[in-house]
Amino acid sequence: MQLTGIYPPLATPFVNQELALDLLAENVRNLAPTGLTGFVALGSNGELPALTEAEKLLVVDTVVANAPTDAQVFVGVSYESTKQALAFISQAAERGAHAALVLPPSYYKSALTPAVLRDYYVALADEADLPILIYNMPANTGINLGPDVAVPLAQHPCIIGLKDSSGNIVQITEIIRQTQDEDFAVMAGSASFLFTSLCVGASGGVAALANLAPRECVQLFEHFERGEMDSARELQYRLMAPNAAVTTRFGVAGLKAAMTLCGYHGGEPRHPLAPLPPDQHETVRSILAEARLLPDETKPPALAGSAAAKR
Amino acid sequence: MQLTGIYPPLATPFVNQELALDLLAENVRNLAPTGLTGFVALGSNGELPALTEAEKLLVVDTVVANAPTDAQVFVGVSYESTKQALAFISQAAERGAHAALVLPPSYYKSALTPAVLRDYYVALADEADLPILIYNMPANTGINLGPDVAVPLAQHPCIIGLKDSSGNIVQITEIIRQTQDEDFAVMAGSASFLFTSLCVGASGGVAALANLAPRECVQLFEHFERGEMDSARELQYRLMAPNAAVTTRFGVAGLKAAMTLCGYHGGEPRHPLAPLPPDQHETVRSILAEARLLPDETKPPALAGSAAAKR
Amino acid sequence: MQLTGIYPPLATPFVNQELALDLLAENVRNLAPTGLTGFVALGSNGELPALTEAEKLLVVDTVVANAPTDAQVFVGVSYESTKQALAFISQAAERGAHAALVLPPSYYKSALTPAVLRDYYVALADEADLPILIYNMPANTGINLGPDVAVPLAQHPCIIGLKDSSGNIVQITEIIRQTQDEDFAVMAGSASFLFTSLCVGASGGVAALANLAPRECVQLFEHFERGEMDSARELQYRLMAPNAAVTTRFGVAGLKAAMTLCGYHGGEPRHPLAPLPPDQHETVRSILAEARLLPDETKPPALAGSAAAKR
Amino acid sequence: MQLTGIYPPLATPFVNQELALDLLAENVRNLAPTGLTGFVALGSNGELPALTEAEKLLVVDTVVANAPTDAQVFVGVSYESTKQALAFISQAAERGAHAALVLPPSYYKSALTPAVLRDYYVALADEADLPILIYNMPANTGINLGPDVAVPLAQHPCIIGLKDSSGNIVQITEIIRQTQDEDFAVMAGSASFLFTSLCVGASGGVAALANLAPRECVQLFEHFERGEMDSARELQYRLMAPNAAVTTRFGVAGLKAAMTLCGYHGGEPRHPLAPLPPDQHETVRSILAEARLLPDETKPPALAGSAAAKR
Repeated sequence: MQLTGIYPPLATPFVNQELALDLLAENVRNLAPTGLTGFVALGSNGELPALTEAEKLLVVDTVVANAPTDAQVFVGVSYESTKQALAFISQAAERGAHAALVLPPSYYKSALTPAVLRDYYVALADEADLPILIYNMPANTGINLGPDVAVPLAQHPCIIGLKDSSGNIVQITEIIRQTQDEDFAVMAGSASFLFTSLCVGASGGVAALANLAPRECVQLFEHFERGEMDSARELQYRLMAPNAAVTTRFGVAGLKAAMTLCGYHGGEPRHPLAPLPPDQHETVRSILAEARLLPDETKPPALAGSAAAKR
Repeated sequence: MQLTGIYPPLATPFVNQELALDLLAENVRNLAPTGLTGFVALGSNGELPALTEAEKLLVVDTVVANAPTDAQVFVGVSYESTKQALAFISQAAERGAHAALVLPPSYYKSALTPAVLRDYYVALADEADLPILIYNMPANTGINLGPDVAVPLAQHPCIIGLKDSSGNIVQITEIIRQTQDEDFAVMAGSASFLFTSLCVGASGGVAALANLAPRECVQLFEHFERGEMDSARELQYRLMAPNAAVTTRFGVAGLKAAMTLCGYHGGEPRHPLAPLPPDQHETVRSILAEARLLPDETKPPALAGSAAAKR
Repeated sequence: MQLTGIYPPLATPFVNQELALDLLAENVRNLAPTGLTGFVALGSNGELPALTEAEKLLVVDTVVANAPTDAQVFVGVSYESTKQALAFISQAAERGAHAALVLPPSYYKSALTPAVLRDYYVALADEADLPILIYNMPANTGINLGPDVAVPLAQHPCIIGLKDSSGNIVQITEIIRQTQDEDFAVMAGSASFLFTSLCVGASGGVAALANLAPRECVQLFEHFERGEMDSARELQYRLMAPNAAVTTRFGVAGLKAAMTLCGYHGGEPRHPLAPLPPDQHETVRSILAEARLLPDETKPPALAGSAAAKR
Repeated sequence: MQLTGIYPPLATPFVNQELALDLLAENVRNLAPTGLTGFVALGSNGELPALTEAEKLLVVDTVVANAPTDAQVFVGVSYESTKQALAFISQAAERGAHAALVLPPSYYKSALTPAVLRDYYVALADEADLPILIYNMPANTGINLGPDVAVPLAQHPCIIGLKDSSGNIVQITEIIRQTQDEDFAVMAGSASFLFTSLCVGASGGVAALANLAPRECVQLFEHFERGEMDSARELQYRLMAPNAAVTTRFGVAGLKAAMTLCGYHGGEPRHPLAPLPPDQHETVRSILAEARLLPDETKPPALAGSAAAKR
């Protein structure tokens, strides 16, 4: 499996707080023709921790069924015990996922030394039915997976890469440098440092922004691939404010609001996360407008005749 | 329900990484005659996040079935969505638990403002089938529930108290001061600040140390109740090092090792948490010995003829 | 030297941003008859880091000259090098100070290991002309001086105590427990945990609040000394909100505003610290009023005929 | 003044803990012909906070006197009050410095809001006799100067740039993007993110590593300027481990040891900072050797006949 290009960590639509699989399916189908390499189901932006075990499997089924056959499907995995993680990965594999994107356990922070964290990933890689991608998300987990954890793991044949959402470019540079000789892909975990990560050798990005601006994220990647540094930098600038709006600034609620504004199915996050208040909704809209990411309103809506229209 | 005195957050024994309900039952029965007011099933020390949904219910059943009829049984609750929490509390209520000890959601840290956290607890209190205790555990969750969250919640008739494991005595004092007129109990979340919490008006403590030294924890409480300040302080001093050994210093692995040394069923934590290495095991033993918490070895073992002996 | 009771960390008055030594002198003389054991010149609340070397010496001179002969005068010391600290302590000793209250160096955080910090204090204690008090103020310095630093230092004959402003009652309890056999006094560094610190064996407190409510702070100490626990606790409750207003909530600007409201010379902090905005000034006033700390307005003002009146 | 290229934040040599100005002078003269644009005196790596006021002025004099006439000389400024900072900048201007590199006040962390920090820089820029560069160094100060502080300040005609040592590439990108239309230069504050900072539009770097590897730092900058991205990236990789050794990993002691190994005057830091222990010294040597930064030992030593040789 070649890891390269852009993957959206798919948002999970709810209607009246209940899983709306038809809307998720439609999002996947609408995103498919934009040049994305694949999809991440059940990432942080997919509200993974707010879903029941049964719901998670339904999400996997839906993404696998609706993604193009040549698209990679990664599945987010977040548990506090090895036992739970292995059980879930096994089910995801049966359902057709291609790789597991695994958050570290994070509750018993003082006990989760680098050695314990490495052992966790090795235990999964040894036993699991899917290739493993390490998922570093310190802002949410309070645990950073630095070179001391990631570099030794890169040697394991079943650990194929790392999504780093820390934004720590020194760490990203260092991990890439030390794993140059391994078959190990480092992916930027957010669009705000996609360009700089590519500059130091990253393979691509898993970016929330690709849920609403997939073509622009792909275009940034392609500019870089073609050596068009000025164009890539300009596009990076243009995506800074929208990316902040759908991640650090307004979170999942901001992402879902922006998706709706861009013609995808966003809606509200699951409680207790609150929907975006009206003033912040306006802020998101003007940020998207200024970055020229709102759909052209003179064109017919992208979703005409879709499941959304029927609701 | 009167909240007062000492409650152990029960460790969850495993044998070969699998739930050992008979050992849990025996721990409860052995702890019962020591003066404890009740038990917490599924707390942080019970490795709550490492258990499956089915396992959690088995633990609740076991504790309810083996606790004395006059003992209170609290059940730990930790989810990222209101929906999941309500579903579990409902099941715990059916199984005979008396109150839910509820950790806050903690993954989407930047979205979990005080208002969102208050809304979460109010939503549970409005709907749940059990009285709610707030559980503040910032070292593990990265979220602190301060006076701005706890004090307004104290007015809700179904929110009956707070376990504060922050150790922030200014915060504990402030919350007690501001909830003096409410029917709201503040419990120290660790034995290391049990005495000082009682001094400022706490109702008791939920202390990991009570898994292995229940009589001493109860004795500290009783000294305080009788106004024996010097004896209470001396006992607090004596419990400092053992308490650190089973909490901040060696974590759940240290707690379980200490329980075994004291004649209870401890064993190993569930992976990826690692068992205590031999040198640390020796350290725990000497700390317990110095604090006179090891059982008298000239007496017959407490567990003779028990389930443990049969293994 | 017997360390016991209450010491205010004196605010440093400015008029038009310039040192106002006459106002400082008057504050010391007005505070003197309230039962305080001594005074701290040049603490955090004295805006130590905003003063030039020459100004610091003028402050020491003024406090020494105006304090009662039986009052202890401690002098705050904050430098990044041993050389600078020794030079200043020597000058403070010549000017009649009784002890040095020494903050740790804090700029090169990653290099300031416990061993380096211990070496710093030992170097000062070996060479300095004054007894040394350790000053732990992690909220401002980003460095915590825990038992691993403080306990070994307590054995040095010239290191006589610790002011702990961390508010970490577990740490305070542990340090007191481990230094019981030393001639080493632990002082609460804020009035918000004065009562609880006394309960676990502290010798007294260095409290910003004693700049404006010296009698109440002394009274809390005396209640405790006489075993009047309920009265001590009630007074602790009463002082919580005023203490927060002059420390964590509104900082030095809040302290100075509150001092003015209570009849002492407060004024404005030195730039860039900003004076309290009017709405926060009102909040401070009502907090003091509710805690019954404002002077009785029917009585003649405490400062009639004073230097302040002449301005 | 055109800010571009590489500036070393000069280490300050001591002999027997006393300032060694002749060694500093020689370092400047030896660094001069390597392509550096200028020098920073009194930065964090120059042990600014460990120097007395008189020593600081001697350092400025020495650097100004020994730098080439076309080299820019920036002077580090770190005070807690506006008054102190202005007094020092005035003296530095008289001595011939070209700009002031100003750390924020950082002691009263909770009072130092973005507005207060902006006011501080504006007050200096309005009054000072030198152009101002903002110096963001959160690892040491505990204060981050983000876009909310830096972007508005960029409009002030006397605030000419920012050295950002946070390593937060998203923040660096965002500040550059928002100040594109201003005459405002953003400089990478460490060699570990020099390449990525240049990629998003930074003007150059102030890098500790340039004290010992000036040619390599300049070369990285020149590769980038010529569009030689692969060579720039390779050189960035090569400098990662040496840069960590002289900054985050071994601090000022590591920097000074590495300087000595590379033929410059390093020596020991001022107490309480400890010199590098022998095993870490060996680690530094092998890191430098592996990165091919040690001088060719077959050549005559760079410093033959120098002040060092005479000691």
